[in-house]
Parts: sequence; C-alpha cells; structure tokens
Amino acid sequence: MKKITVIGGGSTYTPELMDGLIKHAGVIDLGEVYLLDIDKTDKFKIVAELATRMVEHAKAGFKLRWGTDVENGLKDADFVLQQYRPGLLEGRINDEKLPLKFDLIGQETTGMGGFSCALRAMPMVAKYVEAVRKWAAPDAFIINFTNPSGLISEFVINTLGFERFAGLCNIPINTLQTFADTFNCERKDVFLHYYGLNHMSWIDKVFVKGEDRTQEAFTKTYKPENVPDSELFERFAIESGMVLNPYLRYYYTTQTKLAEEKEAKAGKGTRGEQVKKIENELLEKYADVGLYEKPKELEQRGGSMYSTAAVELIRDLSTSGTKEHIVNIRNNGAVENLDRDYVLEINGRVSEKMIRPVCIEKAHPLAKGLIDTVKLFERLTIEAHLKNSRKKAREALLIHPLGPGLEDVDALLDDMLEANNKYFRLD
Amino acid sequence: MKKITVIGGGSTYTPELMDGLIKHAGVIDLGEVYLLDIDKTDKFKIVAELATRMVEHAKAGFKLRWGTDVENGLKDADFVLQQYRPGLLEGRINDEKLPLKFDLIGQETTGMGGFSCALRAMPMVAKYVEAVRKWAAPDAFIINFTNPSGLISEFVINTLGFERFAGLCNIPINTLQTFADTFNCERKDVFLHYYGLNHMSWIDKVFVKGEDRTQEAFTKTYKPENVPDSELFERFAIESGMVLNPYLRYYYTTQTKLAEEKEAKAGKGTRGEQVKKIENELLEKYADVGLYEKPKELEQRGGSMYSTAAVELIRDLSTSGTKEHIVNIRNNGAVENLDRDYVLEINGRVSEKMIRPVCIEKAHPLAKGLIDTVKLFERLTIEAHLKNSRKKAREALLIHPLGPGLEDVDALLDDMLEANNKYFRLD
Amino acid sequence: MKKITVIGGGSTYTPELMDGLIKHAGVIDLGEVYLLDIDKTDKFKIVAELATRMVEHAKAGFKLRWGTDVENGLKDADFVLQQYRPGLLEGRINDEKLPLKFDLIGQETTGMGGFSCALRAMPMVAKYVEAVRKWAAPDAFIINFTNPSGLISEFVINTLGFERFAGLCNIPINTLQTFADTFNCERKDVFLHYYGLNHMSWIDKVFVKGEDRTQEAFTKTYKPENVPDSELFERFAIESGMVLNPYLRYYYTTQTKLAEEKEAKAGKGTRGEQVKKIENELLEKYADVGLYEKPKELEQRGGSMYSTAAVELIRDLSTSGTKEHIVNIRNNGAVENLDRDYVLEINGRVSEKMIRPVCIEKAHPLAKGLIDTVKLFERLTIEAHLKNSRKKAREALLIHPLGPGLEDVDALLDDMLEANNKYFRLD
Amino acid sequence: MKKITVIGGGSTYTPELMDGLIKHAGVIDLGEVYLLDIDKTDKFKIVAELATRMVEHAKAGFKLRWGTDVENGLKDADFVLQQYRPGLLEGRINDEKLPLKFDLIGQETTGMGGFSCALRAMPMVAKYVEAVRKWAAPDAFIINFTNPSGLISEFVINTLGFERFAGLCNIPINTLQTFADTFNCERKDVFLHYYGLNHMSWIDKVFVKGEDRTQEAFTKTYKPENVPDSELFERFAIESGMVLNPYLRYYYTTQTKLAEEKEAKAGKGTRGEQVKKIENELLEKYADVGLYEKPKELEQRGGSMYSTAAVELIRDLSTSGTKEHIVNIRNNGAVENLDRDYVLEINGRVSEKMIRPVCIEKAHPLAKGLIDTVKLFERLTIEAHLKNSRKKAREALLIHPLGPGLEDVDALLDDMLEANNKYFRLD
Repeated sequence: MKKITVIGGGSTYTPELMDGLIKHAGVIDLGEVYLLDIDKTDKFKIVAELATRMVEHAKAGFKLRWGTDVENGLKDADFVLQQYRPGLLEGRINDEKLPLKFDLIGQETTGMGGFSCALRAMPMVAKYVEAVRKWAAPDAFIINFTNPSGLISEFVINTLGFERFAGLCNIPINTLQTFADTFNCERKDVFLHYYGLNHMSWIDKVFVKGEDRTQEAFTKTYKPENVPDSELFERFAIESGMVLNPYLRYYYTTQTKLAEEKEAKAGKGTRGEQVKKIENELLEKYADVGLYEKPKELEQRGGSMYSTAAVELIRDLSTSGTKEHIVNIRNNGAVENLDRDYVLEINGRVSEKMIRPVCIEKAHPLAKGLIDTVKLFERLTIEAHLKNSRKKAREALLIHPLGPGLEDVDALLDDMLEANNKYFRLD
Repeated sequence: MKKITVIGGGSTYTPELMDGLIKHAGVIDLGEVYLLDIDKTDKFKIVAELATRMVEHAKAGFKLRWGTDVENGLKDADFVLQQYRPGLLEGRINDEKLPLKFDLIGQETTGMGGFSCALRAMPMVAKYVEAVRKWAAPDAFIINFTNPSGLISEFVINTLGFERFAGLCNIPINTLQTFADTFNCERKDVFLHYYGLNHMSWIDKVFVKGEDRTQEAFTKTYKPENVPDSELFERFAIESGMVLNPYLRYYYTTQTKLAEEKEAKAGKGTRGEQVKKIENELLEKYADVGLYEKPKELEQRGGSMYSTAAVELIRDLSTSGTKEHIVNIRNNGAVENLDRDYVLEINGRVSEKMIRPVCIEKAHPLAKGLIDTVKLFERLTIEAHLKNSRKKAREALLIHPLGPGLEDVDALLDDMLEANNKYFRLD
Repeated sequence: MKKITVIGGGSTYTPELMDGLIKHAGVIDLGEVYLLDIDKTDKFKIVAELATRMVEHAKAGFKLRWGTDVENGLKDADFVLQQYRPGLLEGRINDEKLPLKFDLIGQETTGMGGFSCALRAMPMVAKYVEAVRKWAAPDAFIINFTNPSGLISEFVINTLGFERFAGLCNIPINTLQTFADTFNCERKDVFLHYYGLNHMSWIDKVFVKGEDRTQEAFTKTYKPENVPDSELFERFAIESGMVLNPYLRYYYTTQTKLAEEKEAKAGKGTRGEQVKKIENELLEKYADVGLYEKPKELEQRGGSMYSTAAVELIRDLSTSGTKEHIVNIRNNGAVENLDRDYVLEINGRVSEKMIRPVCIEKAHPLAKGLIDTVKLFERLTIEAHLKNSRKKAREALLIHPLGPGLEDVDALLDDMLEANNKYFRLD
Repeated sequence: MKKITVIGGGSTYTPELMDGLIKHAGVIDLGEVYLLDIDKTDKFKIVAELATRMVEHAKAGFKLRWGTDVENGLKDADFVLQQYRPGLLEGRINDEKLPLKFDLIGQETTGMGGFSCALRAMPMVAKYVEAVRKWAAPDAFIINFTNPSGLISEFVINTLGFERFAGLCNIPINTLQTFADTFNCERKDVFLHYYGLNHMSWIDKVFVKGEDRTQEAFTKTYKPENVPDSELFERFAIESGMVLNPYLRYYYTTQTKLAEEKEAKAGKGTRGEQVKKIENELLEKYADVGLYEKPKELEQRGGSMYSTAAVELIRDLSTSGTKEHIVNIRNNGAVENLDRDYVLEINGRVSEKMIRPVCIEKAHPLAKGLIDTVKLFERLTIEAHLKNSRKKAREALLIHPLGPGLEDVDALLDDMLEANNKYFRLD
C-alpha cells in the first residue's frame, strides 16, 4: 500500500487535498498519509485534526499521521508533496511590498518577489530532496507546489539531479477544464500545444477529439477569478492567436499591474495580506470539532482544482496504462526551438512511475523570446544561491524583463538581504 | 460509423485482418470495410468471398464490399490500410534473386531488393495518397504495411507531406508481447526505449511498470520463427546491452545471410518463392465455401499479430483517451541525436485522430551510425524516384552499407531497370 | 580599375571618406568615385565640390563624379557604400523626441527611435539593392553605414538575400585601435572574441599576438568621447569580465539615459539637433573654395575612424591574401549558441571578394539573452515592413526590452505613423 | 629565438624538412632544431649527420642537435613535430598484410590497417603530449604527421584536451597547388570549401580570387603519383560535382583496391615493403659524407610538399597577420551539419600562436554519411584504447564501412593482438 507524505502539511490547503485523497484512496491503494511540518503550531494542530476527522468520518481506509520528524515523515514514502511556503506568509508579504519602492513588480512568482522567494526556498528544497533520497522509497516521486514552482522545478531536476519529479500548477488543469466545458467533452479529449515556464505559458493550438479547434478556442482564454481582467490583454491574446497564461499580464501590462499592486498595498492589502486574513477565518472554521469535510469557504483561498491535479497525477503514476498531464519537466526535445535541458511546463505522458515529454513542434517566437530570457534569470538565480554570489544575483536581476537597471540593483539587493537575513546571504 | 478501406484487399493476409476487425467492430464503431485491389483476379475473388462469409457468419454488424474502383473504394473512408505488394510476388522474387549475382543481399526491405521494391512502390503510393486526399474523409488516416515500409513512411510523410499516416510493422508488437510474457504483465505495462528505422531498430531500455528491467530483458531478444538464429548475433546483442531487430543480421552477419540467400535460391527457393507456394495452398483452403473463419495454416504465412497491431491502432485512433503504439512517424525531437525530420520507428502517443512522438533521449552511437547512413540512402532513393535520376540512384546504392562499389553499381542498375521496365525508369 | 559609388554622397561625412580613398587609391586600383544622392541640394553641391577639389589637389588619379541618376551612379560599380539617412536629420530628431513622451528611449539605433528609423530605411534599402543588382558589376559588394545598421544588415542579407554585403561600424575598429595602443602593437595583432548585434556587442576574450590578455584588457573599455561615462556601467563591465559596447548603457542604465535624453531635449537639444548645428558649421567651412582637405572640425561630428574602416575593408576585398575585419555578416556557426542564420557583428576573414565568419565558440549567457530578444525584435520589425502589418509592429515593440507595454503601444504607434506618413504605413 | 623539436627525427623524411627549415629560418627566427628519436640506431645517426651537414653547409644560422633524451629534446620547444611511425615499417607491413586474409583493406590509415596502427600509436602519442606539457614552452604548438593522422588529431584534441595542435597532411597543400597551377595564380588566391577527415575529404566549391570556378575545377582532381588512377572514380567525381580525396577510392572501389593490395603483396610487395626498399637506398645516399643537400631520390619516397606544409604553418604561427591553412582541428561550427566537436580537416585561419576554423556551410550528404560513420569508428577505437576494451574494438570494426562482419571480427582481432602484443592489449 502507498504512503504519501505532505511537506507543509499544516497548510490551510490540506483539507482540499485530503478531500481528493479520500475520494481516490482505493485506486491509489493508499495506506497512509503523513502530514509533515516544521513546528507543532496551533495552526498545524487545527489542520491535522480536521484532516484526521475527515479521514475517519469518510472511512477512507488509510491512516492519517502527522508530525515534525523528517525521518518519520518521509520513511518509505512513495509520493512526496511539497506545498510549504518558505518564510511563511510574512516572507511573501515582504516579497510583495519591497520591490514596489523601486517601481518593480513584487508578485510572489513572477517579479522581483519571485526572486527573493526563490532564494529562501532553495536551501529548504535541497534539504528535503536530500531527505527524500535518504528515507523515502527508492523510487519515490516528488510533486511540487512550493513557489516559485517553475524555478524550483529547474533547481530540483537540473541542479539537484532528482528526476522523479513533477512541478504542478492548477492553471493547466483549469485551462483544460475550461476547454472541456466549452466544447462539451472531457478533459482527456482536449490536447493542447501548451508550453512555457510555470506562470508564463502559451497555448497555440487546441485540439478537441483530434480536431483543430484553435480558432474557436483562443478567444475563450481561461480567466481565473483572482486575476483582474483587462481588455488590452484579451485583445492581444486574440491578435496573437494564442491563449495566454494570465500571469503574462505582468509582462505585457506591467504599468497596470504595478499600479494595482501599489493601490492594493495602500488599501485592501497585498495578496499575501489578504490571504492571511482568509486563512485566519478558515482556521476558525477548521477548529470546529463538528466539521468533517472541507468547508465551502476554502474555495475563496484560490487554488481551484489544486487537489484534483495532484491526486489524479498520483493516481496515474500508480496505475497501469498511459495518461497525460501538463507538468514541469525537462523538455528533452518536446518543443523544438527551446533548449533540450530547459525544465518547462509541457505535456507529459504519464504511466506507472514514469513521465515522458510529448513532442509538439515549435514555440511561437514571442514566447521563445521571453522563455529564453526568464530561463536565463532562473539559472542565474540558482547560481547565485549555489555560490552565495551577489555578482550572479545582480546578473539575474539585470536580465529579468521586470527587473531593475544598474541604478537600483544594489539598493534592491541590500533591502532584500536585510529582510531575508535569516534565510540567505550573498557575498 | 467508420469506413475502412484496404488497398491490396486481395492479399492472402486479408482473412487475418478481417478476424481482428470482426472482434473490435463495436469499439471502432465500424460501418463498412472495403477491399480494394487492382484486378478482379480469381485470387481476389476467393479472398473477398471468404471475407464476406466471415463477416456474415460472425454477424459482425458491418458491411463488407469489394471492387477495383478507386473512387468507390476510398469514398469517405476514415481509415485506409495499404497492404499491396508493388509488382506482386514476381517482383519480390526478382528483387531477391537479382542482387545475388553481385554478391549482394536481395532481401525485400533491407538490401538491394528493398531498393528496387521502393522504386516500384513509390509511384503507386503517390497515386493512392492523391486519391485519399481527393475521395476519403478529410481527416482520413493511412496505415501502411506496404514494403519497404520504412522508406514508404519517409516518402509519404516528408515528401508527399501527408501527416495523418503511420507506418506499421508486426515486430514492435511482437517484441512488446514477448516482454509482457517474460515479465508476466500486459503489453501496456511495458515501455521501451525503442528507436530506428523499420526493420533496423534497437531497444536500449526496457521498463516494466516503470521499473528498469533492461538487464533481465535484453538477453531475451525477440526471435521470430522465420528468421534463423545465430549465436554470433545473440552474443553481440548481449555484449551491446541492446535488443536488436532480427533484420540487423543483414548488417552484422552479411556473409552468413548472403550464403543463406544463395543456398535458398539454389534449393528450397527464395522467401518469395516459398511464400508463393504457401499462398497457393492457402487459396485452396480459402476457396472452400464451408470455411467461415481464418484457417490455422495462415500462421505459417508470417505476419504474427499483424492484424492485432492494425486493429488496435485503428481502435485507439477512434476512441477517447491516450494510448501508445510503436509506429513509423516523424521524430520531431523524440530521439535527441537523430535529425528532427527523420521518419523513425518510435513510440507514439495515440489519441483520437492523433499521433505524437514520445521523448526518449539519445540513440546509441552504433545505432545512430547506421540510421544516419540508411536514412540518407532512403532519401537519395526517393530523390532518384522524383527525378527519375540514375545519378541519385547510383549515390543511393553507393552509400548503402549493403550496396555495391563503383565496379558493379552500373551493371546492377542496368539489370534492375531491365527487370522493372514496366514500373520505373531512370535517366 | 575599380568604381566606388557612395549612396548618400551628399553627407557631411563624405570629405572624411574621400580623405581615406585618396590615400589608398593606388592599392585599390581606384578609377572612379561616384557620389549619388537624391536631390541636387545646396548641401550636396558644397560637399561634392569640396570632394572634387580634394581629389584634384591630391592628384589622386581617379575620377570624381556626382549626380542623382541611379543608373549612372551605380553603373558597373564594384563597391557601393550606403551612408544615407532615411528622412534626413528631421527624421532622426523626430525619432529621438517622440518616444520620450512615453518615457521610452529615442536613440536612433537602439531604442524606439531605431524602430521608426528602420521602417523609413527599409523601403529605400530595398530599392537600392534592387538597383545594385540591375546596374552594378555582377559581383559588386555593398558596404553599409545606414542606420540602424544591424537591422539593415539582417534585412539585406536574410530578407533580400543579397550576400555580398557587410554592415560596418566604427566601434569595432576603434576598439581594436584602443587595444593596439594599450598593448603597444598593431591592430592586426589583436584578436577579439567579439560578438553581438551592431551597437549591442560584447568582447569576452582579448588575444594579443596569440596570448590571452583579457584580464588586463577588459578594465580598459573603449570610451568614445560622445558617450558620457558612468561609474555603474564600468563597474558592471569589470564584474562581468567583458568589454561592453557603450550603447549597452541604454539597456543597463535605462533610467539614466532616459533622463539624459529628456534633459538634452529640454536644453542643448537632442543628438540630432546638435548634429544639425555642427553640420551647418561644417558646410560653411566646406563652402570655402580655398579648402582642399577635410577640415579639423569634422572630428567633432563623431564617426572617428569611419573612413579607415571602410577604405581598409575595400582594400582587403580587392587584394590577394587573407585579412580580418569585424563586420555584420551571417553567423553561419561562428558563435556556437546563437542561431546560424542570425546576422551578427563578428570577426570576418576577408579575402578578394569574399567574407567568411571565423569561429569563436559561445556567447556569454547575458549577451545571448539580449541578442536573442533584440534579433527577434529586428525580425518582427522586418515582417511589419514586408506586410505593412501593425500587428507585427506591435509584437516587435512589445518584445523589445526598451519598448512599451500594451498600455502605450498603440498610442506610440499612432504617433510614429503620423510623423512618418510620407515614409511608411501599417495597416 | 624559436626551438623546433622533431619527434621521429630519424625518419628518412627529415632531410626534406631540414631543407624547408633552412630556407625559412630567418622569418621563423629559428634558434635550434632538435631531432628526437627512441634509439641511436645507425639510421638515426646517418639522418642526423646529413641534417647537420645541411645546416652547416647552408650557414642556416641555427643549431642542429639530436638525441634520445625526451627532456633534453623537448625542453623549451616552441614547436613540436610528430613524424614517428609506431611499430616502425615492420608494424606497417603487418597492418597491410594481415587484413587481406579476411578480404579486408589493410591500408595504413584508411582500412583495418589504420585500426591497428592507431592502437599502436595512441600510447606513444599520449606519452609525448604529456612530455610536451611538462618540458616544452607553455604555449608550445604540436604539428602532427604521425599516422593515422586524422584519428590521432581527434585523440590529442578531444581526448587529451591538448588544443594547440594541428594535424597536417600534404594532400591539401598539393590540391591547392594544383588549382593554383591550373588557374595560374598563387595558392593564397584559392579558397576551397574543403571538409572531411584526413584522407577522407571532399571539395565542393573552388573559389579563385573570390570567383566561383568550381565547374572548371572539379574535373581536374588532384592525382597523386602513388595512387593508381581509375576511370570509374573520376567519372564519379565529375558526376558528384566534387573533388574527391584519392583515398576515397578505398570506399568507392573497394574491390579494385583490395585486388591491387593482394596483387602487390604477392608481387612487388605492399606499399610498406616498397618504402622499406626505397628507404634503404636513400640511407645509402644519405651516408655519403660529401652530401650537403637532400638528394633528388627523396621525391620517390612520397610526401610531396610535406616540408612546405609544415614550414609554412610554423612560419604563419610565428608571424604577425592572418593566413590560412587546411588542417585537422575541431570543427566548432565551421561545417554546419557536422557535429561541433568533431576534429575535421578544414580551413583554419592562422595567426600568431592561434588557429581558428573558418565557416563554410554544409557538407554534401554523401560526405556527411561517411564522415559520421568513420568519426564514430575513430571514437570507438579511442575508447577501445582508453579502456583496453575488446568490446569497444569489436564495435569499432563492425561499424567501419571497410570492416568485417560478426563472422570474422574475432579472428581478425585475435590476429592483430598477436601481431601487436608488444604494443597493445584488449581484454
């Protein structure tokens, strides 16, 4: 029977995940779920106890354990989910606010915020991957949600050399679902020419039951609730003939997004601050010992279909036959004009314990331009981490399309270093 | 409901195919099978009438029609199977015998025999592909068994630009079945790092349920009954750590194969001559109006699992979800160190009306060496056909590892041209 | 004897060029120089008459002719120099001022100014290349100074398919001269790993007489007089271990350059406005019928060593043996990690009527990132020109690191179209 | 002043080389030539004493020393020439005879003879390169004539990582001279699209003073005296539109060459046996103390222009300015469709202490096919040497177009191992 370990098990997302695991416990042949976190905080306790009640109430047939001991937690695990947030919400809020001082985007994955988030995350990720190698089952698979998920996938696969790994995001599955709804079919009937980095991806062909329906599809871009819409961006998508990941707004309407971020900071709070409020409300709900299911309010938290993506991937990595998921894996030739060793968000053929990329020809030049540049940023950031190198960090920031010029790069770095001095240093 | 047209429907293989189609008629949603051939010979009549009896007897629920009119035959077809033999068995027997005069291999796909066979086949293939474009359903798929199947696949996909095409062979499916038997699982549980050209392929990794079982597997190479075994060849496979396509014997034990061919020619007859005898015996059986099923003797004909491969591919191109078949399609990056535009025999992810290659990293240098050279031969042969160019034909023969030197190339070409003057010319 | 035609012969630079041609007339075997321009303006007359006096006074031994007839001008020319400015200085001044409204760089080659300059230039370039094909000698060579010189080189070589072409700039020759001075040797003793686009290039290795002197060299970056220095930029060069083209300041210290441009516009005038003033002063000097040589004041005009670069290239394309020049030509594999078909500013092996790239391994990732992106901008701009496509123009601007976001792109385009309605349109 | 060390200084070629060095001593600034060999044999003594007399008689102004001490010989050398024959002529004669037993070509560089020669050579080459690193000047350059020169170049540059290296052959310089004579110009006026491996090269474009004269040139293939002509081969060259290296006869007219080798073995002796006779005659001449110049009879020995190639390369690596030589160096992108890391025989831009490849676009498919295959053979042979691996040796022989099949590969290897047991072993 399988054991699944959730690192960052104390997250308020956990009930969502538990809901999915309970539903598919049988087909996964699930024996145990272990919620692992760093401290036995009240939050962790509340979440873990709700999870326990959910499993018991549903007679799910698997054990729910929780704790902070890494060896116990990872021992013989078949699947490891990474969903921790390095530096917690405080770290994220810092990431969001700090770059605004220099008129730069602070979003947690895409802008300068993603940079400091990455530098906090990498040491932890390296430690946990090491622990997975030591204690988990020899063919354990890691599924990652920890942000910035794209850069972390690049780091784990190409730097740490851990290949049984998939970076996962809920945008691809939501996009597939949107098209399935639009064309009145199942997700498995939709095949997308989908490529890019996490939160920076393009779709230039939409096939439904093998027929090219791109013309009908690309005007129906996925519009997640938590990203405000923009007429400019939609018109650009239609003109380009491509479905655009909503996070591309940070690149194409930078000024607008910057103004939004500044307004939010001054008013209703940054996204991190809002999430903090929502989380506190959720935890109050969770603490109700009469609650045996995930509460409705969890949907507000964002992350629609998050658990579906994870649970279905685990299921398809555990069962016979060939399935398909859009995941962050090494390109290996699937997209012709992107380097073979780039970790990309692309179609993966999934079978038992295996993911292999599926070939889809060339990326559009506009996409290739950004992907090459941001992949270079990712690799320079990784190098900065590996060598604690301020020089490489400067190069990373200077090359990023949303980064500072030479005028501000040092002041920005100084501020980041001060705010994150518990987490990383650069010499 | 689907219509399947079989070009070369008068083949003695047809009952084997009918057997498979009858079994899967429901899942394919089969409405009609049309057997198309060039002349209403006695042979065609016998085969078609047996096929009709089989369909009726099995209450298969689809129509069986047959005839020689290309428009009628292809009209609105959803799948077109090519299984005709250009120049019939007489052509093949010629191909086999003629090169022996120059101490060269005459096998119908691999040696110099494959060359003349290809030059006979291409004009017909071009004509039928044109007809498919004109009369068949707009998204009709062609599945090819016509030899030399690898070169024909290269020609149809890259020269004629017809992409809804798969070159099919029974060796991959037999290999998968052998491993499934060996490891006591289903074919879909086996994933092979399989690559090469048709009848010239290598397997360097065998995964069973996601686990690397190569060490156990490669000593258990597929051994088809109609290819005599050789200790030298097996030892080489084991030393190389690769499962070798049995037709690679022509490259690695050329002298032995040449001696065998000469001996056969002098004694029991070439393979073509033997097949001719078997066919005559089969047709006698087929003519028995009391026969409602494929006769046992058909197995002797070779082509084990031939209909299974075709019928399952048709099924998976007709139904929802993702499956996998080893087929001849364009590489598109799936094998890193082979040109992206080579048509190769590799893993294809199959879903409704679609095949996409699955990435598997690098070909072994020994394999790459031969693949590059023989692919060059294929392309020069295609160029010779397109331009009726003796110069290109000479280049093709000179570059082939089993071809003649400058001393014999012209005499060989002269003989081939004389023997095939009804089929092609070179200026 | 050779004929050289100078398109844009009425430029105030012409006396500089004449000075060089007079010096090397013998080795070039020069028979005639033809100054070609569009109108017989007073300016053209003054320049041409000074040129005539210079040739006569020096007893240079070749004919000086001038006029506006393209056929006469190009008839049997062996070398064609393009040094015209599309839209004249008025066009340039417009290019410089207009983008400032949107807080964007207006420099004539690098920023948004380069974009409108390119759209004005391409139709003229296409017309002249056509005329060269028609009237000039069959193996005539075009040497280009017309801005934006990098994009024009890409356009002529890859779009118009005219391969006997070199884009020339005075920065490479000045850089070589700087190092020759520094290391007390001749320019031919210096070999640079020099690569990039025109006005966007890097040097990561400096060899002097075959010895690697990079460490000593890169701190001694070329500092042209007409580009203000900056401590930030120099420190970055030293940290990167690369000699940086001074125009890279537009990318790395965008805010500073933008502030400078705005200040200049408000005060001493844009560079174009300053040049206009200098030109007027120069023309007054030129008009002096007692002047037989280029006046000292010409140096202020910028373009140090401009004529040396052109004349030496013409000389080495006319004489036996192998020489070397840094020119804008097709990569063809010289720089490993840049596309083979990019036109780049790189080392060219020059012999009679021939230039071939010299291999120098990989571009630094930082350089590659910018080169790929700006080359994409160039190609989209060329596509916009070819199709009069506003859609492609938008894509070009959006991808440029110094371009606008979706918020301003249309307003910027509208302004450019209005200002340039005599020169181009986009639908 | 420069020091040149000749490893294999006792060769009968040495007087030829001395003749060239004496002529160019001034421009090279030559201070000393050291003849280094393994034993103070009579032969070495005779050759060295003649060399001494030549230098003295010509008042060449440099020192001639000779001996067997590697440290003394290589100490502070600026150029090292490798011209030794591993296993001496006896080794070569063995190489030539042994493969004939299996109906395989025994030529010293191209066929199976090249294989055993390479396995004898590599240990010595590795030892001498190590010694050059230890004793010679830090930027010493190695120029190689030791056979098989192509494989040795691959080995030194890519395996040993010694980059200041050029593999040299007299065929390119003779080809250039032939064209210079044909077109009545100097060698430096001829530019060839020349590519391939040593003794396996093609020329598909001939430029004279920048003009494409290919049509006139390719019918005038270089015909060295010591390679018998053949109408078949010439016609093929003309049809292909390419100038073919005469050693390509071994690939294209294998049967004829094999018959020639067998006949020679039975009659006048193999090439090695003939050379042995010539050498003995030469040594008798050399021993004449009244001889102060290279004797006329040396020409019979083969190797026309051998010393010119070497001496001019040394000169151009010692003097200011850019020159060009066809040498064996790493491709680095110069030929588009051949791997960047292949060591090839191509155009090199030569300046002081530096060689860089010059780009020339694509190799013809026929050439590419053979180059890829024989380069794979080279690399497998190198691997066989590095690991003493019989398995890799088998793979090398099996992939070679002139190698055995599985039937003979082991017997051939056994014979080679026995004949060369003093030189190498394979386990």
